[in-house]
Amino acid sequence: MRVVMKFGGTSVGSADAIRQVAAIVKESRQNHEVVVVVSAMNAPDLRTTDTLIAAAHAAAQGEGDATAHVAPRLLDLHMRAAAELAPPDACAALETEIRTMLDYLSDLSRSIAVLGELTPRALDLFSGLGERLNARLIAAALRAAGVPAEAIDATELIITDDRYGAASPIMDETTARSRKRLLPLLEAGVVPVVTGFIGATRTGVPTTLGRGGSDYSCSILGACLDANEVWFWKEVDGVLTANPKVVPEARSLRVLSYSEMAELAYYGANVLHPKTVLPLVQRNIPIRIRNTFNPSHPGTLIGEGRGDRTARAVTAIKEVSMITVGGPGMLGLAGVAARIFIAVARAKANILLISQASSEQSVCFAVPLAEAPAAVAELRKELENEFSAHDVEHIDVKDSVMIIAVVGSGMRGTPGIAGQVFGAMGEAKINVIAIAQGSTENNISLVVSAADGDEAVRAIHRSFAL
Amino acid sequence: MRVVMKFGGTSVGSADAIRQVAAIVKESRQNHEVVVVVSAMNAPDLRTTDTLIAAAHAAAQGEGDATAHVAPRLLDLHMRAAAELAPPDACAALETEIRTMLDYLSDLSRSIAVLGELTPRALDLFSGLGERLNARLIAAALRAAGVPAEAIDATELIITDDRYGAASPIMDETTARSRKRLLPLLEAGVVPVVTGFIGATRTGVPTTLGRGGSDYSCSILGACLDANEVWFWKEVDGVLTANPKVVPEARSLRVLSYSEMAELAYYGANVLHPKTVLPLVQRNIPIRIRNTFNPSHPGTLIGEGRGDRTARAVTAIKEVSMITVGGPGMLGLAGVAARIFIAVARAKANILLISQASSEQSVCFAVPLAEAPAAVAELRKELENEFSAHDVEHIDVKDSVMIIAVVGSGMRGTPGIAGQVFGAMGEAKINVIAIAQGSTENNISLVVSAADGDEAVRAIHRSFAL
Amino acid sequence: MRVVMKFGGTSVGSADAIRQVAAIVKESRQNHEVVVVVSAMNAPDLRTTDTLIAAAHAAAQGEGDATAHVAPRLLDLHMRAAAELAPPDACAALETEIRTMLDYLSDLSRSIAVLGELTPRALDLFSGLGERLNARLIAAALRAAGVPAEAIDATELIITDDRYGAASPIMDETTARSRKRLLPLLEAGVVPVVTGFIGATRTGVPTTLGRGGSDYSCSILGACLDANEVWFWKEVDGVLTANPKVVPEARSLRVLSYSEMAELAYYGANVLHPKTVLPLVQRNIPIRIRNTFNPSHPGTLIGEGRGDRTARAVTAIKEVSMITVGGPGMLGLAGVAARIFIAVARAKANILLISQASSEQSVCFAVPLAEAPAAVAELRKELENEFSAHDVEHIDVKDSVMIIAVVGSGMRGTPGIAGQVFGAMGEAKINVIAIAQGSTENNISLVVSAADGDEAVRAIHRSFAL
Amino acid sequence: MRVVMKFGGTSVGSADAIRQVAAIVKESRQNHEVVVVVSAMNAPDLRTTDTLIAAAHAAAQGEGDATAHVAPRLLDLHMRAAAELAPPDACAALETEIRTMLDYLSDLSRSIAVLGELTPRALDLFSGLGERLNARLIAAALRAAGVPAEAIDATELIITDDRYGAASPIMDETTARSRKRLLPLLEAGVVPVVTGFIGATRTGVPTTLGRGGSDYSCSILGACLDANEVWFWKEVDGVLTANPKVVPEARSLRVLSYSEMAELAYYGANVLHPKTVLPLVQRNIPIRIRNTFNPSHPGTLIGEGRGDRTARAVTAIKEVSMITVGGPGMLGLAGVAARIFIAVARAKANILLISQASSEQSVCFAVPLAEAPAAVAELRKELENEFSAHDVEHIDVKDSVMIIAVVGSGMRGTPGIAGQVFGAMGEAKINVIAIAQGSTENNISLVVSAADGDEAVRAIHRSFAL
Repeated sequence: MRVVMKFGGTSVGSADAIRQVAAIVKESRQNHEVVVVVSAMNAPDLRTTDTLIAAAHAAAQGEGDATAHVAPRLLDLHMRAAAELAPPDACAALETEIRTMLDYLSDLSRSIAVLGELTPRALDLFSGLGERLNARLIAAALRAAGVPAEAIDATELIITDDRYGAASPIMDETTARSRKRLLPLLEAGVVPVVTGFIGATRTGVPTTLGRGGSDYSCSILGACLDANEVWFWKEVDGVLTANPKVVPEARSLRVLSYSEMAELAYYGANVLHPKTVLPLVQRNIPIRIRNTFNPSHPGTLIGEGRGDRTARAVTAIKEVSMITVGGPGMLGLAGVAARIFIAVARAKANILLISQASSEQSVCFAVPLAEAPAAVAELRKELENEFSAHDVEHIDVKDSVMIIAVVGSGMRGTPGIAGQVFGAMGEAKINVIAIAQGSTENNISLVVSAADGDEAVRAIHRSFAL
Repeated sequence: MRVVMKFGGTSVGSADAIRQVAAIVKESRQNHEVVVVVSAMNAPDLRTTDTLIAAAHAAAQGEGDATAHVAPRLLDLHMRAAAELAPPDACAALETEIRTMLDYLSDLSRSIAVLGELTPRALDLFSGLGERLNARLIAAALRAAGVPAEAIDATELIITDDRYGAASPIMDETTARSRKRLLPLLEAGVVPVVTGFIGATRTGVPTTLGRGGSDYSCSILGACLDANEVWFWKEVDGVLTANPKVVPEARSLRVLSYSEMAELAYYGANVLHPKTVLPLVQRNIPIRIRNTFNPSHPGTLIGEGRGDRTARAVTAIKEVSMITVGGPGMLGLAGVAARIFIAVARAKANILLISQASSEQSVCFAVPLAEAPAAVAELRKELENEFSAHDVEHIDVKDSVMIIAVVGSGMRGTPGIAGQVFGAMGEAKINVIAIAQGSTENNISLVVSAADGDEAVRAIHRSFAL
Repeated sequence: MRVVMKFGGTSVGSADAIRQVAAIVKESRQNHEVVVVVSAMNAPDLRTTDTLIAAAHAAAQGEGDATAHVAPRLLDLHMRAAAELAPPDACAALETEIRTMLDYLSDLSRSIAVLGELTPRALDLFSGLGERLNARLIAAALRAAGVPAEAIDATELIITDDRYGAASPIMDETTARSRKRLLPLLEAGVVPVVTGFIGATRTGVPTTLGRGGSDYSCSILGACLDANEVWFWKEVDGVLTANPKVVPEARSLRVLSYSEMAELAYYGANVLHPKTVLPLVQRNIPIRIRNTFNPSHPGTLIGEGRGDRTARAVTAIKEVSMITVGGPGMLGLAGVAARIFIAVARAKANILLISQASSEQSVCFAVPLAEAPAAVAELRKELENEFSAHDVEHIDVKDSVMIIAVVGSGMRGTPGIAGQVFGAMGEAKINVIAIAQGSTENNISLVVSAADGDEAVRAIHRSFAL
Repeated sequence: MRVVMKFGGTSVGSADAIRQVAAIVKESRQNHEVVVVVSAMNAPDLRTTDTLIAAAHAAAQGEGDATAHVAPRLLDLHMRAAAELAPPDACAALETEIRTMLDYLSDLSRSIAVLGELTPRALDLFSGLGERLNARLIAAALRAAGVPAEAIDATELIITDDRYGAASPIMDETTARSRKRLLPLLEAGVVPVVTGFIGATRTGVPTTLGRGGSDYSCSILGACLDANEVWFWKEVDGVLTANPKVVPEARSLRVLSYSEMAELAYYGANVLHPKTVLPLVQRNIPIRIRNTFNPSHPGTLIGEGRGDRTARAVTAIKEVSMITVGGPGMLGLAGVAARIFIAVARAKANILLISQASSEQSVCFAVPLAEAPAAVAELRKELENEFSAHDVEHIDVKDSVMIIAVVGSGMRGTPGIAGQVFGAMGEAKINVIAIAQGSTENNISLVVSAADGDEAVRAIHRSFAL
């Protein structure tokens, strides 16, 4: 079985963690072809990527030696880890490589200072450096652990357009290059350790993939290499049924469908953004979320299949405002929904939930608390004429609300789920302000007062014995 | 107490019905000042207004004598009723009046035929004639029953703009004229019998008020005359808890709030469109819906007050399609909701319900079955680019669904109502496809398969013991 | 030779004039096949078409007998002329026909009064009646003069769209119908006397062709019948070199090119609007403008050919404002010309002349005096930002100016013409405010102060010995 | 008298020229307070600014030592001149300064190469360097000639927005800084030698002013310092009556009005763009154009006044196309002028001249030859419907034409000028294709065939004895 696996965050943030990574890869390699994708090393006291970006900005402010105090710390961070993970000669070779890269950094920094500006293109040269350092360190650690490994810059593999800071891959070229470069290594029993987050344009200029970039890199390579599975190693035992801070008995789910994962993406840091795994979903490649620090736990397997006929998880969005536009003339008023959402878009407010019950007397929707005032202002402007004609009579805003979402792809088509959700609310004496359940979504969303939110989550978790 | 009351439909459709009307007015007059508003006489075998409109169209096709065979039938319809309701001399006077009006009709008809076209203005001259005939007949019936009464054309009272076929009242002038003309009659103990549906421009050209016109006439006069209550006499004992054809144990509601009535307006023929009663709601004038054929029943009283802390009624919209637009890139896609509803508006489709649950993966909404194909076509055009970018991946349509709405202004803020609604669905093993409950609405809407619809209505009615 | 000839205005305004028409037709018929197109009879004391239109409006105001006093006068007008032109029996037949038509008019009038409104479609029924009466009268006069003739309503021949009041012909159907109806008459030696101005839709509803309608009718028939020439009989000896009220020695031109005629169309009543003769120009059919009251004069022949190498005529437009938009930043300002003319179009002002000399510092143009204020207001709005940026600094308006146009298709390509025009201005000490000569136009336009206008016309006329 | 004077082009292009500059400044200083503005040194074999820009582009292509071979040549260019103009010790000091600046250049170059891209901001750092070098050289030359002088970077004086490459001055701050920095020097008898072309943002980032930048710098300083006159030293004796290559007897004009200068700006390299001198025109500060190499010649004085009552100069634009849009339906076609120029703007074609004579049959305008095909293509697209409706029938293009402009602010309002212009054309037997004279312009433009152009210029020059 061919597995592309990604390690990020604290999973690659210390020598201990990387030793763990090496053990996992070594173990996995016994049964599988393994490709590793890694993020930058983010130690608690030195977050590599943030540090690099800060240095780039300092350079643009004229600090030509912006990296002068950063470079030694980065060298030290990586070499201290190396010392624990690899033999001295390997460390020496690694140090030479890292010094070369840090010299380049210093060169970049000085150039930016001379020119006095930081372009998105120049920032991408900086911000992807952490991954390059870490890939080399981890490859050395793997070799020290007896695993043949080679660090590879994704600039060789992932070809993107030139939207610096948020580039998109060009899949056919990326596929060709990745297979040409990586398949021979896999055949030779070597584990490629590929930098996450970065790519390059056709002419070779480095780019970064934007938010969730390392996850995206891993998905791209998984798709290009026809992986049998793609594993994302995190710090938890998979996807949880609820936030354990709110629900102490929250537990990890064995399996999850792609669509359930997508529903959950909005909420927690530990889930994958649906767009970053699109290459895998399109090819129906199973995804596994596992715990670097508890590798014997099977984690959560995410795939096409349909889950149990019940709710699977319950989550919450806090700091939400509920806006309602209504009036006696809205019944049959052509295009008013469009105009409401045009106004909201103009205010650049994100729409978290919409609910218009069937009598057409009003439309209600939720936006983040901070974005509500602008949305309301734009609505008042847009609907001025309707106000004077009494077609629209009020725009109400409820500020202290929370959205609770109950997720489960199998609950769709299952009688009684909604009853159980709202029954739980009734028992807990929690008033439900608004409800939305879309027809293809595996999600019942309810709006409750902020004060009731945590208890609502617990009540649902309890009711479904999640 | 001053009461403006309206009789329409079958309440004024036969001699027997009109005798009943006379009895009601006579009885009411003992304690109240009464103003009567009437529709045209629609007998089962001769629907006056439809007949008049058909004749107008025939005239425009060149039939100069389009009314030649219509006029005698209308005369006969009204005079046969008159013969049962009024003494011979009153009948003779009435016949003279009706003949004059029918001669005018024939004149109109011939003129339209000569000119060969039917303008909206000319159509309004035709279509309001039935009310004029009937007001005269009913006034005669009242007098025969010993009630002093006078037929009055609303062209004297209700001043409108000149949008023929759908005119709007100009309230200040209408108030002045109505009070000047009607208050002296009321003081003199005379019951004015006013034509519904029609008005006139400032220069005296007759107009019609469009859909629900007689109800609107009654509301306008109720508001202008500061009525204490406004009564709409229908063929049922008030507003029902459900459609009795679906739920045999459906019963009439004693009281209802304005907003509950507005929620119910969308569904059944027996409820008032919120815009037609806006003049009353704005002035907080109580509305009563009563049964002409069961006048001892108190009917339903509609006012400002808040109902019980429970559901009040359950209704259904049939022939509905559910459209869902979704894809992995919709999360965070700016303005996509606006663009979806712009496309729907362009397709001239009415939006019956919207639901977007909180994960932003999709937006779903319901439109009438017949309007779905155009809406989908416009959506495909609008979102073409998003499709190619895989931001949007599917537009699904579910054709055989029904919307069930549970209404009750007191259920808002009451824990457990939603639980009870969905609990009822669960017990009945009915799958809920989508849910929407807006924050100010007194309405939980659920979408279920068409096959489950009637049973869903019954289950809810049963559960709440409506 | 086949000739379609049109008589309008005072040429058909009295018995004497019609006798003249009959003489002309009789004479022409000796050598040619002749089709006659006629306008309504406009006697000095009774302008038929205006009278009819006024009656229609009166009817809409409720005067059912609006035609009651008009009909006898129209009958009298036509019958008095008939008495002079035709024998008693023909007069009797004509009177019957005219009475029938006037009865229809009275019917129309009463119908409009009953309905109380006048639609464009109904107005067309009225306004084309004068042509119908006159065609019958003139046909009778021709027969009395020994010319076989038949009056024909153009509703049988000219098929149009349904833009009442300004309909456009559908040429292929019109050609088919005209040839089928008229060619047999011509073969039989009968002169068709066709009504100008009117046509009918495919379904037979009468229409009118709008401004210049009778000229247009004549052109349409000339084109449909492949006429060898089309003659327009007017009250002058052809197209004049200048307005004789300003220039006493103005004289008639022998020949003129189509494009010269088009240049002159803008100015005087005696020339044909280029769009009304487009059917002839497209088929290269020669046009002749002749004098009904001086038929021995050859008039002006208008055709494709190129005129002499000199100026041919000089004309003036009075009541003109000159607007200039300028500023230091206009040089190279993209799209400013477009935006200026967008603003002018929004103000619904007609542009009579544009001149922007080559340095791009300003654009100047002329509009009718009455339309200048709106144009200036729109310009100020449109160019607000350019004003603040000092790109545009002034919008000047000169109110008392006249445009003088010197026309001659042969003067293009002839050195010295412009010199002679402006030399004449110099000698007359007249200051030229602006100049425009477009590259394909046979026209030099100059703007002079209103006070200098007449003298400028005279000076040019003199200089070219026109 | 306070004079701000600018030397550019070949006036500062060699040691000889700069010696001449020094002599002029020395002489001027006897009677005036003098501020000098200078361009970069453009020797025939080494155009400084172009060389710098080329080096910047080379650096972005990765040539880190792009300036390696450029710097010595620039050093040599300036130091060879210095050796002729200044004593050895001054040369040594200058060399140190220049070397520092060239080192910075090399630094910039290396930085751009490291980052691999050239932003507009970075380009401005390069492209303004020539002025900095030259200001220092010229200040040294002045001092050597006994004139106390100080080189000043305009980055200290002229504050601009941050549109790199085409920045606009912020006048109030520029005024404050310029006066604070320069007035004390003037009082102390020191001549400031200010760099043209460059400025800086409020935060001190260097910018350039775009096209005509050094002229603009000089105008800005003239305005900020309330100069009595502003002199532009060129290579000719002022503004000429015509191009001496075409008209051997062309001569320099003594005086010229601002508006005449603006009219001439379009044509020759030796005249000032009206926007660059706007600060002077707004303050009514006289401008003088003088000849560096013939300083005893008074040159041309440009001011508010009105010139003689005749033509002043005649110029030509070559490589022009004349486009004419016409058709029988254009008369009265609303908004067609706007749509024509919208199409032309969309094609990004510059409009050099417009002429629409008064009959509204066509609009004609001139654009540069190279831009005509795109304009015509856009016109065909825009007017497609009008073509099918035969309202517009032709779009003609005449490719080999020239525009001749006769300029003179006094000729406006003077009878006979136009006559003389076109009389001259007639005598020379030159056909005038189109004419435009706008109402406030001091300009008669005529379009003639390219073959006739030079002769037309000569004929007019001769006729007016310019």
